[in-house]
Amino acid sequence: MTDLRSKEIHDEIDGDTLHEECGVFGILGHPDAAALTALGLHALQHRGQEAAGIVTFDGKQFCTEKRMGLVGDHYTDPATLAKLPGFMSIGHTRYSTTGEVALRNVQPLFAELHEGGIAIAHNGNFTNGLTLRRQIISDGAICQSTSDTEVVLHLIARSKHASTTDRFADAIAQVEGGYSMLALTRTKLIAARDPHGIRPLVMGELDGKPIFCSETCALDIIGAKFVRDVENGEIIICEIQADGSISIDARKPVAPQPERLCLFEYVYFARPDSVVGGRNVYVARKNMGQNLAKEAPVEADVVVPVPDGGTPAAIGYAQQSGIPFELGIIRNHYVGRTFIEPTQQIRAFGVKLKHSANRAMIEGKRVVLVDDSIVRGTTSVKIVQMIRDAGAREVHVRVASPMIFHPDFYGIDTPDRDKLLANQHADLASMCRFIGADSLEFLSIDGLYEAVGGIKRDPKSPQFTDHYFTGDYPTRLLDQEGASNVRKLSVLASNG
Amino acid sequence: MTDLRSKEIHDEIDGDTLHEECGVFGILGHPDAAALTALGLHALQHRGQEAAGIVTFDGKQFCTEKRMGLVGDHYTDPATLAKLPGFMSIGHTRYSTTGEVALRNVQPLFAELHEGGIAIAHNGNFTNGLTLRRQIISDGAICQSTSDTEVVLHLIARSKHASTTDRFADAIAQVEGGYSMLALTRTKLIAARDPHGIRPLVMGELDGKPIFCSETCALDIIGAKFVRDVENGEIIICEIQADGSISIDARKPVAPQPERLCLFEYVYFARPDSVVGGRNVYVARKNMGQNLAKEAPVEADVVVPVPDGGTPAAIGYAQQSGIPFELGIIRNHYVGRTFIEPTQQIRAFGVKLKHSANRAMIEGKRVVLVDDSIVRGTTSVKIVQMIRDAGAREVHVRVASPMIFHPDFYGIDTPDRDKLLANQHADLASMCRFIGADSLEFLSIDGLYEAVGGIKRDPKSPQFTDHYFTGDYPTRLLDQEGASNVRKLSVLASNG
Amino acid sequence: MTDLRSKEIHDEIDGDTLHEECGVFGILGHPDAAALTALGLHALQHRGQEAAGIVTFDGKQFCTEKRMGLVGDHYTDPATLAKLPGFMSIGHTRYSTTGEVALRNVQPLFAELHEGGIAIAHNGNFTNGLTLRRQIISDGAICQSTSDTEVVLHLIARSKHASTTDRFADAIAQVEGGYSMLALTRTKLIAARDPHGIRPLVMGELDGKPIFCSETCALDIIGAKFVRDVENGEIIICEIQADGSISIDARKPVAPQPERLCLFEYVYFARPDSVVGGRNVYVARKNMGQNLAKEAPVEADVVVPVPDGGTPAAIGYAQQSGIPFELGIIRNHYVGRTFIEPTQQIRAFGVKLKHSANRAMIEGKRVVLVDDSIVRGTTSVKIVQMIRDAGAREVHVRVASPMIFHPDFYGIDTPDRDKLLANQHADLASMCRFIGADSLEFLSIDGLYEAVGGIKRDPKSPQFTDHYFTGDYPTRLLDQEGASNVRKLSVLASNG
Amino acid sequence: MTDLRSKEIHDEIDGDTLHEECGVFGILGHPDAAALTALGLHALQHRGQEAAGIVTFDGKQFCTEKRMGLVGDHYTDPATLAKLPGFMSIGHTRYSTTGEVALRNVQPLFAELHEGGIAIAHNGNFTNGLTLRRQIISDGAICQSTSDTEVVLHLIARSKHASTTDRFADAIAQVEGGYSMLALTRTKLIAARDPHGIRPLVMGELDGKPIFCSETCALDIIGAKFVRDVENGEIIICEIQADGSISIDARKPVAPQPERLCLFEYVYFARPDSVVGGRNVYVARKNMGQNLAKEAPVEADVVVPVPDGGTPAAIGYAQQSGIPFELGIIRNHYVGRTFIEPTQQIRAFGVKLKHSANRAMIEGKRVVLVDDSIVRGTTSVKIVQMIRDAGAREVHVRVASPMIFHPDFYGIDTPDRDKLLANQHADLASMCRFIGADSLEFLSIDGLYEAVGGIKRDPKSPQFTDHYFTGDYPTRLLDQEGASNVRKLSVLASNG
Repeated sequence: MTDLRSKEIHDEIDGDTLHEECGVFGILGHPDAAALTALGLHALQHRGQEAAGIVTFDGKQFCTEKRMGLVGDHYTDPATLAKLPGFMSIGHTRYSTTGEVALRNVQPLFAELHEGGIAIAHNGNFTNGLTLRRQIISDGAICQSTSDTEVVLHLIARSKHASTTDRFADAIAQVEGGYSMLALTRTKLIAARDPHGIRPLVMGELDGKPIFCSETCALDIIGAKFVRDVENGEIIICEIQADGSISIDARKPVAPQPERLCLFEYVYFARPDSVVGGRNVYVARKNMGQNLAKEAPVEADVVVPVPDGGTPAAIGYAQQSGIPFELGIIRNHYVGRTFIEPTQQIRAFGVKLKHSANRAMIEGKRVVLVDDSIVRGTTSVKIVQMIRDAGAREVHVRVASPMIFHPDFYGIDTPDRDKLLANQHADLASMCRFIGADSLEFLSIDGLYEAVGGIKRDPKSPQFTDHYFTGDYPTRLLDQEGASNVRKLSVLASNG
Repeated sequence: MTDLRSKEIHDEIDGDTLHEECGVFGILGHPDAAALTALGLHALQHRGQEAAGIVTFDGKQFCTEKRMGLVGDHYTDPATLAKLPGFMSIGHTRYSTTGEVALRNVQPLFAELHEGGIAIAHNGNFTNGLTLRRQIISDGAICQSTSDTEVVLHLIARSKHASTTDRFADAIAQVEGGYSMLALTRTKLIAARDPHGIRPLVMGELDGKPIFCSETCALDIIGAKFVRDVENGEIIICEIQADGSISIDARKPVAPQPERLCLFEYVYFARPDSVVGGRNVYVARKNMGQNLAKEAPVEADVVVPVPDGGTPAAIGYAQQSGIPFELGIIRNHYVGRTFIEPTQQIRAFGVKLKHSANRAMIEGKRVVLVDDSIVRGTTSVKIVQMIRDAGAREVHVRVASPMIFHPDFYGIDTPDRDKLLANQHADLASMCRFIGADSLEFLSIDGLYEAVGGIKRDPKSPQFTDHYFTGDYPTRLLDQEGASNVRKLSVLASNG
Repeated sequence: MTDLRSKEIHDEIDGDTLHEECGVFGILGHPDAAALTALGLHALQHRGQEAAGIVTFDGKQFCTEKRMGLVGDHYTDPATLAKLPGFMSIGHTRYSTTGEVALRNVQPLFAELHEGGIAIAHNGNFTNGLTLRRQIISDGAICQSTSDTEVVLHLIARSKHASTTDRFADAIAQVEGGYSMLALTRTKLIAARDPHGIRPLVMGELDGKPIFCSETCALDIIGAKFVRDVENGEIIICEIQADGSISIDARKPVAPQPERLCLFEYVYFARPDSVVGGRNVYVARKNMGQNLAKEAPVEADVVVPVPDGGTPAAIGYAQQSGIPFELGIIRNHYVGRTFIEPTQQIRAFGVKLKHSANRAMIEGKRVVLVDDSIVRGTTSVKIVQMIRDAGAREVHVRVASPMIFHPDFYGIDTPDRDKLLANQHADLASMCRFIGADSLEFLSIDGLYEAVGGIKRDPKSPQFTDHYFTGDYPTRLLDQEGASNVRKLSVLASNG
Repeated sequence: MTDLRSKEIHDEIDGDTLHEECGVFGILGHPDAAALTALGLHALQHRGQEAAGIVTFDGKQFCTEKRMGLVGDHYTDPATLAKLPGFMSIGHTRYSTTGEVALRNVQPLFAELHEGGIAIAHNGNFTNGLTLRRQIISDGAICQSTSDTEVVLHLIARSKHASTTDRFADAIAQVEGGYSMLALTRTKLIAARDPHGIRPLVMGELDGKPIFCSETCALDIIGAKFVRDVENGEIIICEIQADGSISIDARKPVAPQPERLCLFEYVYFARPDSVVGGRNVYVARKNMGQNLAKEAPVEADVVVPVPDGGTPAAIGYAQQSGIPFELGIIRNHYVGRTFIEPTQQIRAFGVKLKHSANRAMIEGKRVVLVDDSIVRGTTSVKIVQMIRDAGAREVHVRVASPMIFHPDFYGIDTPDRDKLLANQHADLASMCRFIGADSLEFLSIDGLYEAVGGIKRDPKSPQFTDHYFTGDYPTRLLDQEGASNVRKLSVLASNG
């Protein structure tokens, strides 16, 4: 079984990228509900490779399968799908931020309520999750996991409202943060998105049946049509009627807020072929590269992406600058879940397990190295060194997003503040020396806003969530403010 | 993974015996807490082979390991024990009655309460468990499993009392049924036994540290001393003090009831070397055989036990009757967890996978076949046939317990009432014809009482729990009375 | 995977018993060939629990499955049996003596020969195996395992004869030692037994189809009839004819020798219900106990077997002496493959993981403890101590076989000569002190001969193989004589 | 366990690409021999993902580990490396062509010879392997696998020469075909390459210790220096001397032939950053794309690669044509070993499990789709359809290699001749209609020769192996000529 140690090691090998918690998928009224959910989760696998879970309701009981590992390892064989009968299903693929690595914490979570069972899957994080948990426990409830999802289940169960929908809306109104959430009851599929729309959630349709999922790429794989984004602060309730038809109802239980999608979805998380907030991600990334070429040009022989994240921006940089785009770094595609707990001997090879320099494209050349972002900078150091070892004459690092100064509390796994490269150095020159490049430039925040949304940042009312760059958090951070008190909970360490 | 289907098949091969839910073990204040718990559970393995779990508290956090399979398969290697640090531990080995076969339902269960974490393991069943669950859910709690243990956790969490001990006592006062229960908090090990003492629970001591376990054989394996039985209706609270000493306190939160230990512990469940309620189990079983020989003598050449359950009674029968005891049936010890989902072809061999006739002791002989009990009778049919095929001249079946007419609701897994042999036939002669024996006799209820307790059954106040034979249930059966309403809960089928 | 270390530990827990290499089973012409072979191997599981293999021929190709672990764990599910189609099959269950613990060495072995494929499974050991291997290799052959079976394959392949049968006979004529062997070709099932008949092999019949197996218990489980023993030095060739009928032919390629079955088959290895050499094993063991009671009587209160090996002899001792037979030691049946690589902490519990004293039958009593044999004596020490700890007044150890002085070279895994109890002490009194008993007696060699064969040992021509007691080896020991030269082979350590 | 069925399904999902058998790596005299071999094999993982094996010699015995799955899954943890001690090691990573999918066939193979043990790993295929096997078997040897490697071991064992080196050279002289081979003895690491140099093999050096491996990328990952190619027909013998120094000796046992490296190494197999035959593979592929743009230009809006194989050629096509290179197809990197035995429902999604259209780059556009090669064409059909579904105005397929007409017998797994697209259609127009493109063009054979070697094909003495395109096999095909007779061997089907 994977444990925390291997996660650390994976980070070491995998570079110092950020990780998002999850992807979600749900469908109502389709005979192939579980299989379609498995395919949708496979398309969302980039949002979390640690574990996946699917819950269906077959008219009599809720059925669930949860497994560590990739969707395709477990959910596509007849034996597993046979255990997930029914016309309605939600699923979840997970990378762990809150809570330990354990099957116990794998979503969706299920609870028996007075009015019947309910299963919930969510992507994101509550900024008042610990505060709520403390209240719930002091009121006499028991918590069996450390996940936000369990908090939502408790809030639903404790609501004074009669209907499940009202209870769900009541629960949603109490949580703060960034999230996309799906719930499955005996007759309903419910979708909800946080008031700022920080995390993405889209609605689709297949054979007339409603689908919700984190990104449009999960619609494309099964040939479903994109209908619309779930709006920020919106709850959409789909219900199977007695005649088999499906009613769709929407509501906004809390006061509307301006939408502010997370910029890191565009910079790194979302799949390039997805359309997030109406914008193709690949195009946004190419724009970042083009703007970067305008803001930070350099005389060079080749534009080389740090694969795979930096590739679209590198193509944009190359097209804008006229410098040829070349695969100067080759990625080993067989890293995956491999290298669990390697010896120190093996770990020392670090980035070379995943990347290797393509000497013929590097030797004697002036190289523009394009990456999507820099977090701790430790991987950049190794990659720049690798490029130099391959004989580069000059190495100019260009980063297609601004410097990261602040942690995230909306579902992105960020290192401690003082581990961030931008906080470890007084200025750009010092950073450049640290990573060993001849020059280093980051895309400006306005350059990023223009690449994604077409216009500069509005400082009074920013169009996107961008606190990691700017410190401007879209919500209050209740748990953080009282952190010292709240965290005093016994934590159950499980390896099950 | 084991699933429900394989359980059915196992029943088919394993004969139509009854199965008990669980064994429990706990220790406080010992540096080898987890290893001793693993050894204790190994000695209690006969009470449940499906799964086992151990929880420890290491001064900072609760640690848990839960695994499908035998204790010795998982809990004795250094890697697993290293994940279970600390001086206090409770453990559980389980055969499933209530709740499906799934890691999620493996005990001990843990919950975060206002005053800190608590883990609970129990053997037995609540007769008002579903009723309580319905109340709890309608009050706004969420239930994530189908186990009675979760009900207890909720009752503790919802109690108005301040201390954990008072909360635990408050919870215990609300449940009805037969149970032995262990709880572990940050400083306490708590043991509780139901008001009738239906399920066994004993207290022991090792190096001055308190131990609780289902049977004395778990004390013997680690060289611990037997202290006393936990009394019916008693709660014993052991707490580590600031100076490292351990305080022990006992209380009885509900009105005292006469003790009525489950007779089936003597007939079948407990290990022969255990002392249950002050009586050695092997001696009790030999007495059953001796009384059976007195009540139902027969002229014969050999006394043959149906191994291993019938062996002590057969020895008693042979000693009383003077007919030689012989191993006329040889048991294959390699059945264990094997034969998961065999082909129909293999299943047809049924009982022969486990037992074979020792022809030299059977051929031409008049055989007294001694078994501990008959449930459905389907295995008896096959064994009698096997003995006849081996050339027996006569086959006289003697059963060392009375006929079973009624289901159990205190932790024994009984088949539906109409599947019981005694309910399928008008009289003994019909049963005898069904199983194909030359004669068939059961021990009388008084013969059983005398074998175990030395005196006949007192019909006004029976000394033991014996409803499966007599229909005299020691408690009301609240869930059963309102069964049709109560059972309408969504059940979550999990294969995780 | 199991490795050598866990084997050592298993020995430690499992007591210092001897282990035999294997059991074999083969059937020709039956539509359920593989399933019947799996059942037969399950009945022979006591002859080897480490691994099992089955080979079938389906008319076109040979199919094989080999697995570590018990037969019932792997060979009874539809998926595995579906991979073993065909009407002819041989199988093998193994405990490792020669060769390491590895799937590579699991039998049957298969080879492509000029006249078609051949698979071979065998129980026993060649006393000239290393000598032959050295010759074969020096002639330019390659050896890919360290098993005797590979040697036979080479001898068959190199034979100058034309027919497979003649080649097989030619090979058999070159090997020395003790063995039972089965071979499967495209049309034939061939059985062979060594010239002295040291290892057992019987012929049976089901639905008119021939079966060969190590013991009759493998016939009983599938309802097959016993036909006869394969004679010492005999080869039996069964062949499917063009019309579907089966021809059976027998020959004896080497000069006849007097039959000398291994006495340890009667003392310990064979299942009690098996008929070996025409004698029921359980009866033979009871006779040993009776003779022991005559030779070494003692005044006592109970006769207690060391389970399970000592049970039949203890019944005999009790019947002869009139002292009651009681289960004074209870065996934990859940040891099996468990306790792989336990901590030292756990290992210290040694014999208690498997056996526990039944105090009620021991306390204050004079105990006769009956065991089948004593090898190193280390387990006897612990068991006697356990009986004393349970309060025995006196402990008299009676062993139902003579003292063991000499190693075996015919397929029994014996410890080094100087580890044997009998070689570590000057006399019986010293041994008795070592194991801590009040008295210690072994059955005499004549007492054993009479128990098994009805008459005393004929020193000029002993009726059985008994070198472990007497030093009288039935064959020369070629490999041993030149041991220092022969063993200089590179050994391949595999963990695959 | 993986079986043949899942292989077929994998082919279905994985597109109709060709597969190569293996990669090899060996090192002599280095303290980290096994770890370096594991890293080298990881870099060669693209040459075979089914299984991997490593053999070391630790001065006393040969140690081996063989595992199904990826190198990084098994060979980098301390426990596995601890089982592979020693200063000399060879390893192998495998995709199965000859022989079934089974651990038994995983290389390296080991044999005990007269002069000591030897382990052999090889990449490639013998064109006289079955013929040799028939001779060897008829001479009285036994064959236990269906691999060519076993044939080599037999030839070495049977050689009349005295030294291992001479025996190895003698064996090499008898085999025909295309191969790179490594052998490990107690003191030597030996490398051999076929007389035409069809399969690649390079020599490197780390800390003064010799290394041999299939491609230079395995040198790069461990920071080793490239020394030179092993020449066609050359055997290089490295031996540790008594003083710890290493002697290196080379010889050519057979008459020299012109070198003819396999063109498919350049077209598809080798990693882009490898240098094969002195030529960087990425540059060769870009040249193929540039030549394709010259030979088959088209007016279009975007150049889209079929990832990842078509990417370098697409970059070349784009640079040459001036049409922008865009990621119009996004590859799901999480396919790996996933989707084992999916339901038909899931299989129907076929290529979409791996690839998805990036609509923003496709819709309304004239698309040039660049792929490295077309084998059966079935995947091309699906990809063209996917591009059309995403709204492409025109789809022009450009293939960076010639049409494939002929099967390979040198280690490439080709489908049956009549399954090849080029053999199923009368002309290019018919193929184009079949795959549904607006136009279809293949690179000419001369265009390919120029891309790789700088000059046109010399029809009298072609510079490369190119029979799949031209039918001009570099060697005779002995097994094929007598195929009907030779194949009549029993094949052992193993799933172990």
